[in-house]
Amino acid sequence: MAGERTFRSGDDVGVLARLRERVDDVARRSPARLTLMVFASVIAVVTALLSLPIATASGDRAPFADALFTATSAVCVTGLVTVDTAVYWSTFGQAVILIGIQIGGLGVMTLASILGLAVSRRIGLTQKLLAAAETKTTRLGEVGSLVRVVLVTIAVLESALFVVLLPKYLLLGLSPGTAIWHAAFQSVSIFNNAGFIIEVGGLGAYVGDWWMNLPIIVGGFVGALGFPAILSIAGSWRRPRHWSLHAKLTLATSTVLYVVGTVVIGAMEWANPRSFGALPVADRILAALLAGGTPRSSGFSTVDIGTMSEATWLVQDALMFVGGGSASTAGGIKVTTFAVMVLAILAESRGDPDIEAFGRRIAPGVLRVAIAVAFVGATMVGAGTLALLVLTDLHLDVVLFEVISAFATCGLSTGITPTLPDSAKYVLVALMFAGRIGTMTLAAALALRDRRRVIRLPEERPTIG
Amino acid sequence: MAGERTFRSGDDVGVLARLRERVDDVARRSPARLTLMVFASVIAVVTALLSLPIATASGDRAPFADALFTATSAVCVTGLVTVDTAVYWSTFGQAVILIGIQIGGLGVMTLASILGLAVSRRIGLTQKLLAAAETKTTRLGEVGSLVRVVLVTIAVLESALFVVLLPKYLLLGLSPGTAIWHAAFQSVSIFNNAGFIIEVGGLGAYVGDWWMNLPIIVGGFVGALGFPAILSIAGSWRRPRHWSLHAKLTLATSTVLYVVGTVVIGAMEWANPRSFGALPVADRILAALLAGGTPRSSGFSTVDIGTMSEATWLVQDALMFVGGGSASTAGGIKVTTFAVMVLAILAESRGDPDIEAFGRRIAPGVLRVAIAVAFVGATMVGAGTLALLVLTDLHLDVVLFEVISAFATCGLSTGITPTLPDSAKYVLVALMFAGRIGTMTLAAALALRDRRRVIRLPEERPTIG
Ligand SMILES: [K+]
Ligand SMILES: [K+]
Repeated sequence: MAGERTFRSGDDVGVLARLRERVDDVARRSPARLTLMVFASVIAVVTALLSLPIATASGDRAPFADALFTATSAVCVTGLVTVDTAVYWSTFGQAVILIGIQIGGLGVMTLASILGLAVSRRIGLTQKLLAAAETKTTRLGEVGSLVRVVLVTIAVLESALFVVLLPKYLLLGLSPGTAIWHAAFQSVSIFNNAGFIIEVGGLGAYVGDWWMNLPIIVGGFVGALGFPAILSIAGSWRRPRHWSLHAKLTLATSTVLYVVGTVVIGAMEWANPRSFGALPVADRILAALLAGGTPRSSGFSTVDIGTMSEATWLVQDALMFVGGGSASTAGGIKVTTFAVMVLAILAESRGDPDIEAFGRRIAPGVLRVAIAVAFVGATMVGAGTLALLVLTDLHLDVVLFEVISAFATCGLSTGITPTLPDSAKYVLVALMFAGRIGTMTLAAALALRDRRRVIRLPEERPTIG
Repeated sequence: MAGERTFRSGDDVGVLARLRERVDDVARRSPARLTLMVFASVIAVVTALLSLPIATASGDRAPFADALFTATSAVCVTGLVTVDTAVYWSTFGQAVILIGIQIGGLGVMTLASILGLAVSRRIGLTQKLLAAAETKTTRLGEVGSLVRVVLVTIAVLESALFVVLLPKYLLLGLSPGTAIWHAAFQSVSIFNNAGFIIEVGGLGAYVGDWWMNLPIIVGGFVGALGFPAILSIAGSWRRPRHWSLHAKLTLATSTVLYVVGTVVIGAMEWANPRSFGALPVADRILAALLAGGTPRSSGFSTVDIGTMSEATWLVQDALMFVGGGSASTAGGIKVTTFAVMVLAILAESRGDPDIEAFGRRIAPGVLRVAIAVAFVGATMVGAGTLALLVLTDLHLDVVLFEVISAFATCGLSTGITPTLPDSAKYVLVALMFAGRIGTMTLAAALALRDRRRVIRLPEERPTIG
């Protein structure tokens, strides 16, 4: 018996060891592929849980397309929904969504931070892991402590949001248990820029409520900066000169885009009687302050996007496409990608040989990564839009909006997602997954294959433009 | 008397000399600005001529907005029209348009060739002119002979089109005089990718007519390659290995985009009963062969674009935005811009330090120019689209199409241009002008300001994507 047990136990250890070795192997060869597999697995589990009858309020089994869509939207912290989160799902279903958001946001942030640092240092995770194996945990310990810092920061910031929101929900008259549940859900949803809400009837009732809106605006902005930027800024809070170039660039671009978004959307909707025009002036200002930031990140909205003008949709399309910071809970091509391209154009127009920002020269290779990210992003959006135009009878304005919202994991909607055929829902699922995983995986894959050629070909300049 | 005459003559010479000196000065300081001034002047003259009562068929004075729009469309070889060229304008008016097209196409081609070569060699025209002044006409003679080659090539190719088309018009039953006029107008319009037609009722009647379509397809394709490419290919016709990288890249990309455009548009409209689906199979093939090429250049169309699906419009949007070859009669961001960005992404994904094509390394600075051209182009299209959405009640699908068509000087239309308010017409006028002048001026301005900084800043890599 003992011998048999030992044998079995040894066998189990063998299987586990082999599995761990397998994971290590994938991680060593391609951390990007590992991220992708982890994400797909989490989405599969959340889909399975949301497919249980107890996950819905009615007790009926959710259709597969809706379960998959909601799971992907949660884990990819998007916020697009085919069914009303507040009404369709049971508290169990909502809890599954919350956990999906937290794992999705957490996983992406920690993994993306590691990958992001790997990319930015031009040292692949492979090399890091190998180095750690050689030097016995020195460097791997570094990675481990980074993850620990990230987890602590998430806990601190989400707790802060919770503490601010809980009294609000209690004042609204909810029972303590319900208030705690709502404050917890909202805190996680805000910090992870998920855009899911469990308020029945949506946020429309809170359009003029500063207590409800400010946490969304501030929490979403901070979450959308991304961990490399947050840690750099938090690390030397009082000395902005010591912040990394990445942190400075992210904060500056995010701020400029937030101000531009707020002013432009506010101005364009100010007199629209179907949207802001129907509100008192103070509420219009708050609605603009919210609407200026959420396209780039959380996708929360107190005013129905469907009532806004097509011109505003186009501005939101642009903001969503740019998105938030690298290794953040926001999506899009990222503010640094946008900033590097703008700086490159400014440098070119001035005839400067170098791209510069904040007293630093930006390595020319960075520009190539930026173009790859932006171009591949535009191609994904184009292909997704084409697919939805073919699959539905909808027009370009609403299709482009929903496709960019999915790709940029923003979650704003003109309202078409619930009406889409399953085929179109699957296209959005693919876009959310690719948008969340894509550019980061690409960046990682690019930096990890730093193969150099020995022979350089003769140079020639084709005419451009 | 004699003294007075001499005095006056001397004064005249003085004014002329001062004017020439002034032009030389502008040319020396900024050839791009000279191009811009020349274009604006030509458009002003054509607008004035089209404003004469004899320019219209009815004898009424054309509204200023229509005269300006038509003049800009002609000189910028676009082909968008607010009024039907065949019906609204008199033969005098049509002749003015024809001359506008020829000067516009000619001027752009010769000037752009010079500027293009200046850009590609990283030697500004200023330096060339200064060098010519120093070495006494050696280099200026070079520029002069280039212009002569261009003029001869235009004459040869337009004559070839005329010879092919004249019998066609005679067979259609036109009187010799009318047939010559139609063949001449069509030849100039085709080679210059202008897209203007003087056939009453448009080209719809010729949808299955290979004799009418093939000159448009072939002539438009050659004209859209651009002079640097045409001259390089013509210079060593039998030895493709000797063609410049620019010529190879332009020809390869143009061919790939033509095949992709033809297959995709053909497939998407094949069964559309409102467009290709209503035609016999042979006609559908010819319609696809035409529709695959014209979005990138001429803007001729035998099938009403308004009857095509929105998905096809999106494909056409993409093709129009890319456009034709540098220093050609086609517009857009140019095929080399597109090719360089695709090559950069391929190089990045393979981890190659260099961007390569046809056994040559592409200078890193070229990529920066490409990004500037593409990014500024996208910004112009975005701004124009936003303006039209604000100024009209039209939807994004048709607005985006018309704006890209104007910016890319393509001239395809879903049919909204004649219905636009004057304010929106002026936006399209600005887009046509900027699209025709813009990227080229930009490229020239960029290459001419090759200021180098002595102090280089320390390098840092922000995270991208
Ligand atoms: K979101
Ligand atoms: K054209």
